[in-house]
Amino acid sequence: MTHPLYAKHQATLEAALAAIHTRGYWTPYAEMPSPKVYGETAADDGKRAFEACLGKDFELDQPGRSGWAASERSPYGIALDVRYPVCEPSALIAAAEAAMPGWRKIGAEGRVGVCLEILDRLNKRSFEIAHAVMMTTGQGWMMAFQAGGPHAQDRGLEAVAYAWDAMRGVPATTVWEKPQGKNPPLKMQKHYEIVGRGVALVVGCGTFPTWNTYPGLFAALATGNPVIVKPHSNAILPAAMTVKIAREVLAEAGLDPSVVSLAVVEKRSDTQALATHPAVKSIDFTGSNVFGQWLIDNARQAQVYAELAGVNNVVIESTDNYKAMLRNLAFTLCLYSGQMCTTTQAILVPAGGIDTDQGHKRYDEVAADLGAAIDKFLSDPAVATAVLGAIQSDATLARINEAGQYGDIVLASKKIEHPEFPQAEVRTPVLLACDAAAEKSYMEERFGPIAFVVKVADGAAAVALSERIVREHGALTVGLYSTKAEVIDAMTEATLRAGVALSINLTGGVFVNQSAAFSDYHGVGMNPAANASYSDAAFVANRFRVVQRRYHVE
Amino acid sequence: MTHPLYAKHQATLEAALAAIHTRGYWTPYAEMPSPKVYGETAADDGKRAFEACLGKDFELDQPGRSGWAASERSPYGIALDVRYPVCEPSALIAAAEAAMPGWRKIGAEGRVGVCLEILDRLNKRSFEIAHAVMMTTGQGWMMAFQAGGPHAQDRGLEAVAYAWDAMRGVPATTVWEKPQGKNPPLKMQKHYEIVGRGVALVVGCGTFPTWNTYPGLFAALATGNPVIVKPHSNAILPAAMTVKIAREVLAEAGLDPSVVSLAVVEKRSDTQALATHPAVKSIDFTGSNVFGQWLIDNARQAQVYAELAGVNNVVIESTDNYKAMLRNLAFTLCLYSGQMCTTTQAILVPAGGIDTDQGHKRYDEVAADLGAAIDKFLSDPAVATAVLGAIQSDATLARINEAGQYGDIVLASKKIEHPEFPQAEVRTPVLLACDAAAEKSYMEERFGPIAFVVKVADGAAAVALSERIVREHGALTVGLYSTKAEVIDAMTEATLRAGVALSINLTGGVFVNQSAAFSDYHGVGMNPAANASYSDAAFVANRFRVVQRRYHVE
Repeated sequence: MTHPLYAKHQATLEAALAAIHTRGYWTPYAEMPSPKVYGETAADDGKRAFEACLGKDFELDQPGRSGWAASERSPYGIALDVRYPVCEPSALIAAAEAAMPGWRKIGAEGRVGVCLEILDRLNKRSFEIAHAVMMTTGQGWMMAFQAGGPHAQDRGLEAVAYAWDAMRGVPATTVWEKPQGKNPPLKMQKHYEIVGRGVALVVGCGTFPTWNTYPGLFAALATGNPVIVKPHSNAILPAAMTVKIAREVLAEAGLDPSVVSLAVVEKRSDTQALATHPAVKSIDFTGSNVFGQWLIDNARQAQVYAELAGVNNVVIESTDNYKAMLRNLAFTLCLYSGQMCTTTQAILVPAGGIDTDQGHKRYDEVAADLGAAIDKFLSDPAVATAVLGAIQSDATLARINEAGQYGDIVLASKKIEHPEFPQAEVRTPVLLACDAAAEKSYMEERFGPIAFVVKVADGAAAVALSERIVREHGALTVGLYSTKAEVIDAMTEATLRAGVALSINLTGGVFVNQSAAFSDYHGVGMNPAANASYSDAAFVANRFRVVQRRYHVE
Repeated sequence: MTHPLYAKHQATLEAALAAIHTRGYWTPYAEMPSPKVYGETAADDGKRAFEACLGKDFELDQPGRSGWAASERSPYGIALDVRYPVCEPSALIAAAEAAMPGWRKIGAEGRVGVCLEILDRLNKRSFEIAHAVMMTTGQGWMMAFQAGGPHAQDRGLEAVAYAWDAMRGVPATTVWEKPQGKNPPLKMQKHYEIVGRGVALVVGCGTFPTWNTYPGLFAALATGNPVIVKPHSNAILPAAMTVKIAREVLAEAGLDPSVVSLAVVEKRSDTQALATHPAVKSIDFTGSNVFGQWLIDNARQAQVYAELAGVNNVVIESTDNYKAMLRNLAFTLCLYSGQMCTTTQAILVPAGGIDTDQGHKRYDEVAADLGAAIDKFLSDPAVATAVLGAIQSDATLARINEAGQYGDIVLASKKIEHPEFPQAEVRTPVLLACDAAAEKSYMEERFGPIAFVVKVADGAAAVALSERIVREHGALTVGLYSTKAEVIDAMTEATLRAGVALSINLTGGVFVNQSAAFSDYHGVGMNPAANASYSDAAFVANRFRVVQRRYHVE
C-alpha cells in the first residue's frame, strides 16, 4: 500500500527526478517572498513566530536532557537568548537507534513521503526560518529568505530525489527461476530490504545553517538513517526550527520523532564523542579544515562527507564586456561580505594586462577598476547593507582588520552603519593586489570579504596557477573571462583535471558563487575543498545497503 | 555519435539493466561448457591455448619492464612456469595516467561499449581461461569453467550495468532558463562531464582470480578510470589473459592499451607502493584481513572496496526435510574444499536437538549424520575429485592438519588420489563438534574445508549467536533451517540488523555459498566481512565525479 505522504507528494518527487536528470531550471519552492505565493499574512506571521522564540526555552522533548544552553550572538547586535535543551550524546544516540527499525519498516516510499512533507512544512515556514537565519548568520534579508528557505529546501529535495533514484532500482521481491534443461527449473522467492547504515550525524556551519545542512539531513533520512543535527553554536535556531518541524511530521505519521534530533553541545569533546560513537555511520560536515580533517582521521567508523576550505579563483584573460564583468565580480565579492564557501578569493590577471571592449587595460587598471566597481555598487547605503549583511564572527572581523599585511590595498574595508540595526557589524570588502609569487598571501582561505588581484605572467600562467590552486588548496568555484576559444578550452581541460566547476564569462545576473539546485552541482568532490557534491549518486548511494533473503518456492 | 561498440552491445546492456532492477534469473553467458554454445572446437582450442602459455614468456608489451617472474605453483602438481613481465610500479602508474584523458573523452557510451566487447571476448575464451583458473586455483573443472568464466563475466557485466545506470542519469548538456518576471529569462548553456577519480588498483585473490577481480575491474573501467590489475602471485595467468584481451580490445578501438595493465610484483613493498601512490584513487581488494586492513589504514588517498575474512554460519533449528538438508549442507562443505569466501564454517545446532520429518534428532546425531552425508557424497572418487578440486595453498593444508585441536572430530579429513593428477593435493573436509563457549575454535575464519557443528542452548540462542558472529567477525552468507515462522522472522530481523544475506531452508539445487549475478547481492557491505557489495549503486557511484561548466547564451 502506498504511503499517504508519498501519494501526496508523488508529483513533486517525479518532477524533481526529471529535473536532476535533465538539469534545466526547476524548483517547487518560490524564491521570492511574495504574499501571492506564501500568503498575505506569511511575512508578519513568520516575523512574529521568530520573535516568539527570543528569550525563551526552545522545547523539543528530547531524551537525556541535562540542561539548557543559549550560545547565539546576533551579528546584527539584537538580543537572541534562545535557550536550547542540552542532551546527553549517548541518550540521543540510543533514541536514534531505537527509532531506526520503524524508519526502515515504512520503506523507501514512506520515508521519501515523510521527507517531502517535512520539506513542504519547511517551505511554508520560510519567513520564520529566514528571520532565524538572518539574525544568527548576519545574512541580508533577501539572501536569508532565499538561501535559508527555498534554495535550502531545493537542496534537500534534490538529495531526496537522488536517494529515491538510487533506491527505486531495488525491487522489494522477485521470483528467480533458473532453467534446468529437461528438469523442473530451480525457483526461489527473494526479498530485498533497504537498510540504512546507522545513525547519521550532520554538523552544520555558522553561515548557512540550513543550506549546508539539508542535503546531508535529507540524504541520510531518505535512505533509512536516523539523523542527529549538530548545529554551529552561533546558528542553532534555524536548525532547531527544522528539527522541530521534522519531529512534528514524524509524530503525526505515527513514527518515533527521534528519527531526527538536535544536538546542542557545550563542549567540543561532546561533538567528538558523538562523531566517533560506533553507532554513527555517516557524518556530513561543513566547516574548517582543522575539524574536518579531525573527523576524517578519527571518525573512521563513519563515512564522512566534508565541505572544507578552498581558494576559489577567477582567471581574467580578456573580455568583450569589461564593465559588466566588473559589475558581476563586484557583486560576487560583496554578497554576504564574501562569507560564502563559493566566493572568489583570488582573481588572476596577466601582468601585461588584458584586452577588452574598452581597449587594453593594464593589470593595475583592472585592479583599480574592480575596486571602483565595488565602491560604486556599495554607494547606496540601502543596497550596501542589504547585500553585505553583517559579519558573522569575530574571527572574520579580525581577518578583515589584518588583511592589509597580505598585499597592496586597492580598496580598503569600511565599516557601514546599518540604519535598522545600530549594533550590526557591517563591513565592505577589502581588495588587495599582490604578485603570483606571494603565495602565502592569497593561497590559503581567508574567509570573509578579502580578495586578491594576483599578478600572473600571462593567460597561460593564470590557467596553470588556477589549476594548481585547485589541486593543492581546493576550490568550490572557478571562473574565467576570455574571448579566446583556445583559452576557454585550456581552462576547461584544467578544471576537468583538477575537478572543479567552471563559470565562463559571467557578465549578467548569474554569479560564480551561486549554484542552482537541480542544475548546478555544488562542489565536485574531487579536490581538497570537498569530498562530496550536492548532489549526485555518490552522495546517497553509500548511505544504505541491501540485505536479501531467499527460499525455494514451488 | 554512438560508439560502434556501444551500438554492437546495446541490447545486452539494456537486458542487463533490466535484470539488475528486476533481479530474476538472467545471463548472456552460458554456464554449461557446451559445444553447441561455444563451438565444436572450443574445448580443444581452449586447452591448447592454455597449454601454449606454459613454460613461456607471457608477452604484454607494457612499459617499465625490469624483468620476468614465474611464481605460480599448480595445486594439481603440473608444471606451469609461465613467465610474466615485471614492470616498475611508477611506469605502470604513469602509463595509466597518460591513458586516462582518452578514456574519459570517449564518454560513458564508448567506455561501456569497450567493456562489453572485452566481456564478449572473455566469454569466447572461457575454456582457455577456465584451464588457467583450474590449474592455478585447484578448482575442479566445472567450477573453474563456470565461476572462472561465465559467472565471473556475469559479475563484470553486472558492474558495467550499475555503472551505466549511475552515469546515464547525467546529461551531457542542458540549457538552463530561469524566468525573470517581465525581464528576459537568464539563460545558460551547461556541460556536465563524467570524470573518473584516478588510477584504480584491483588486487586479486588466489582462489577466484577472475570472479573476484571482474567486478572492481569493470566498475572502475566503465566509470572512467584506468585499471592496474595486481593478481595473487599464485593465480596470475587468468588475470594476465584477461588483461591481454582487454588491451587488444582497447588497441583495436584506437585507445591507449594502458587503460588496463597487469602488475606482477615480486615484493610486497611494491604492492604497497602501488596502493599508496597519490595517483591511485580506488582499490578493490579480496583477501586477508591483515593486508586488507593495512590498505584501509594506509591507502587513505583511495576509496578501498574490501572483501575480507568472515565466519559464515548456518542455524539449524528444525527441518521438514532432514535428508535433503544434510545433502545440501554436505555439498556446500565439499565444494572446492570449502575454499570459498561464502562457505559455511559454523553450523549452530541446539543442545536439545532438532525436530525433523525423521523424528527428533539429538545434537550429536545431527553432527554424525552430516559427517555421514559428506562421506557418502564423496564415496564416488570421480565425484569427489571433481567437486573438491585441490587445496590451493600450503597454509590451507596446514590448517586442515591442525584442525583436530579445535574440537571433537566428527569426520576426519582424508587425502584422496586424483586419477588424472597424481601430485594433486586433494583433501576431504574435516567436521568438528564443539560447544558454543569454545569461541576461540570456531569464531575466527579457518579458510578451507574445516567446519564446526556448534552446540548452542536452543534455537533463540542460535539466532542470537549467529547475529553476534556476523556483527563481530563478519559473514558473507548465513543460512537457516526452520519450519517455524517465528524463528524465520527472528532470523530475518537479526540478519537485517547485522547486515548479511540469508538463505532459508535450502534443500535443493541452490547452495548457501552460491550467489547468482543480477539477482543475489554478493556481500552486503555492512558487516566486517566486506565493506562493499557485488554489485549495487554504492559499488559504482563513488568511482566518478561530474565536472560542470556553464556560460550565458542568448
